[in-house]
Amino acid sequence: MQELERIIGYKFKNKKLLEEALTHPSYSNNLSYERLEFLGDLILDTLVGIYLFKKHKDKNEDFLTNLKSSYVNKNYLKKICDELGIINFIKHKNCNIKRTDKFIESLIGALYLDGGWRVAERFIKNFVLNRELEPLKDYKSLLLKYSLKNKGVFPEYRVVCEKSSHDKKEFIVEVKIKGIRKVGKGKEDTIKQAELNAAKQLYEKLTKNL
Amino acid sequence: MQELERIIGYKFKNKKLLEEALTHPSYSNNLSYERLEFLGDLILDTLVGIYLFKKHKDKNEDFLTNLKSSYVNKNYLKKICDELGIINFIKHKNCNIKRTDKFIESLIGALYLDGGWRVAERFIKNFVLNRELEPLKDYKSLLLKYSLKNKGVFPEYRVVCEKSSHDKKEFIVEVKIKGIRKVGKGKEDTIKQAELNAAKQLYEKLTKNL
Repeated sequence: MQELERIIGYKFKNKKLLEEALTHPSYSNNLSYERLEFLGDLILDTLVGIYLFKKHKDKNEDFLTNLKSSYVNKNYLKKICDELGIINFIKHKNCNIKRTDKFIESLIGALYLDGGWRVAERFIKNFVLNRELEPLKDYKSLLLKYSLKNKGVFPEYRVVCEKSSHDKKEFIVEVKIKGIRKVGKGKEDTIKQAELNAAKQLYEKLTKNL
Repeated sequence: MQELERIIGYKFKNKKLLEEALTHPSYSNNLSYERLEFLGDLILDTLVGIYLFKKHKDKNEDFLTNLKSSYVNKNYLKKICDELGIINFIKHKNCNIKRTDKFIESLIGALYLDGGWRVAERFIKNFVLNRELEPLKDYKSLLLKYSLKNKGVFPEYRVVCEKSSHDKKEFIVEVKIKGIRKVGKGKEDTIKQAELNAAKQLYEKLTKNL
């Protein structure tokens, strides 16, 4: 744990918080990162939002929402988790942990409880906001607009497949627009993300005429 | 505006922030509450989340998420807006403003920018967290579980109708489960909320055997 404290540049006063943030429920009956993830998720969202709000004074709320998504989405947080090598510090029992992004959030929750807003903010500035990203396109909204404008109907999303084992879930979602033959498909570990992927695929097919 | 400051118990150093928070875009070309709503939405979510996290030390993240929803959902915030009479202070041009909840959020954004975390927190404790609420049931999750358990399929949501005029939107969503005759319908001004209402109706039909 000292090694991790060196990597993130912060020494915990209460080491138990750091331990809780990095404990998967498979490892312990009475310790889990999940409550801290609830907290850290909120704190990350807000501090990124405040930072972008102050930085982009001339941009509207849609731009800010999409740019915030770039910094708080699962895939970007997973990348940060990889860069910091946090996976090596997670305590678990024979689990193939896919959602490593959640441990960035639980770590932020622990940092906030141990050191307050400033400590959480410093971590987020150093490791999350430390590069320029483009706003994430909201493909569900784009597809909705396209569909209403061209066909006057709503896109229809349907979960066509779910696979789940003890440590992994996967959903396949299909999206269609009545009167259009093309179909979008998305595969992910949450329905929401699978819908987004499906919307992206169909939207690109329609607008790039694939 | 002095009257509103008296009601909420805070005097703004920068009165323009308060003005911005209460200006509908119909009223002005260069002033709108919407950026402050983006900010206030995040701050409200986080401060309610932190408060509940600390208050309910023995509860898990699902409980906290559902209880937080009770305090930050549209209908509850609308009620607070009514209680404080904020509608009387909103500047607009001939608009029938339905989403008054958004002005509670923009007000919180303005309070944060003017006075920092403490001022935003005081407002939220005095006017949002000042009563005990029950966790909001997540009917989409409940219906999903029911559907998978009893029929092995996913509920299917479909937007069947959209009405919109310049200051009002309305969606009707239908939800069905393959192999079950009953249908749930929901009507609201966002698709997400209409889906929730539809899920609630169908779930109650199925579990109360209506």
